[in-house]
Amino acid sequence: MNDAKPRQTEWNAGSLAGCIDQTLLTATATESDAEAFCREAAGFGFASVCLNPVFVPLAASVLRDSAVRVCTVVDFPLGAGGFSAKEAQAKTCIRDGAEELDFVVDLGLVKSRRWADLENRLSALNEAVKTFSASLWAKEPARKSRAGLPSVITKLILETCWLSDEEITGCCRCAVTAGMDFVKTSTGFAVVKDAGGALLPNGATVRHVRLMREAVGSAAGVKASGGIRKLPDALAMLEAGATRIGTSSGVRILRELDTLER
Amino acid sequence: MNDAKPRQTEWNAGSLAGCIDQTLLTATATESDAEAFCREAAGFGFASVCLNPVFVPLAASVLRDSAVRVCTVVDFPLGAGGFSAKEAQAKTCIRDGAEELDFVVDLGLVKSRRWADLENRLSALNEAVKTFSASLWAKEPARKSRAGLPSVITKLILETCWLSDEEITGCCRCAVTAGMDFVKTSTGFAVVKDAGGALLPNGATVRHVRLMREAVGSAAGVKASGGIRKLPDALAMLEAGATRIGTSSGVRILRELDTLER
Repeated sequence: MNDAKPRQTEWNAGSLAGCIDQTLLTATATESDAEAFCREAAGFGFASVCLNPVFVPLAASVLRDSAVRVCTVVDFPLGAGGFSAKEAQAKTCIRDGAEELDFVVDLGLVKSRRWADLENRLSALNEAVKTFSASLWAKEPARKSRAGLPSVITKLILETCWLSDEEITGCCRCAVTAGMDFVKTSTGFAVVKDAGGALLPNGATVRHVRLMREAVGSAAGVKASGGIRKLPDALAMLEAGATRIGTSSGVRILRELDTLER
Repeated sequence: MNDAKPRQTEWNAGSLAGCIDQTLLTATATESDAEAFCREAAGFGFASVCLNPVFVPLAASVLRDSAVRVCTVVDFPLGAGGFSAKEAQAKTCIRDGAEELDFVVDLGLVKSRRWADLENRLSALNEAVKTFSASLWAKEPARKSRAGLPSVITKLILETCWLSDEEITGCCRCAVTAGMDFVKTSTGFAVVKDAGGALLPNGATVRHVRLMREAVGSAAGVKASGGIRKLPDALAMLEAGATRIGTSSGVRILRELDTLER
């Protein structure tokens, strides 16, 4: 994991792309949308493409000869499907070719402050999916060498807009103890009401990224996601301690950087 | 299924409650929220309580001696988890005590107009969960007699706000051919942008309920859900052809009817 936090000028297209999970999670996306999306992403050297589980087999096939990993989301976006469903869905995704898994935390446990429960369940889940992928990849070494990892990368999505600072740091502590690789801010699907009752989309904030980085120290990566559409937003998140950016605007962000460099 | 469409004055608290799936799907709900919700619902004679899968065991326990069924949602709210994850999650929910299952349709297949694929997959899914529940309930007759049914009730959630009329009727046709018991309008989680870019929550409309009733005829129930918070809304949906109402305001709606009756 890249825990360095270089200044804006230190980034180039390759290093920035390597921090981006290029993301398509729209519920109405079709197979041809997903295929075009993966083909475009393959040329940019992203860390991964992140798609809904239904498109993992397609992404794995399109990206077979690319270094871009296949990432997907589990129990998304509510996190209320239960741990056995999380594990079953994760295993299906691994069989289908997923190399990174972004799990939504069980928000009910967080809101009840049942930290010991959450830690135990995340530990069991993380162990189960890491063991499952390591064992599958040992039988099929091409998968392992493709991923460049001993087992899947795991991330815990917090949905920070619903959480207090204490709840955010509690989740971070549980994720680290459970051995998860990243904590991640947002699903990109949460909407909150402002004082006048208007709905606002809600995603990563610099303040939450900083809080999460302080909470995990160097023991995990931090993925900022939700609402990041422009280069300055992405750089601000990296500056605050993010090591991965989830965005549907990865290509646009790299083009902005390219314009700066010319 | 109650396919009669009585006039407003024909409804009483018992008949109206029997058409309501009293619903709590908030991602941040805790176990104690869910328990209080189920205890309150037990006294009102609702058709079911509808909660996220993580709370199915709790709901089944609290409602053990009540006629209110346990309903849950599968692959919710995006419907992009893939059919094998839908089936696995549904079976876990049935084992945990669910008697009604509301599945979100695979919107990518709908948007590609892959009707034959959708019909085949829904048929296989419906057959699998009906057979699984019938077989489990045959071994545990108390479950069957509690549910008052040979197997689980299945519903297909369309998320009508994203769909054209042709796509809505296509989904209805597939659900009926697959043998599903209900079509359902909405998850309650979709937000759409208005002309000025403001986000608006989106749920059931009278027009869509009427369209769905025309499409399914008497071969399936129609569940109106999303944004139904008051008695007149509920009655308008029933008038338009709905036979089930999904709402988090079931208690309030029954109290409004009670006030009218006095």
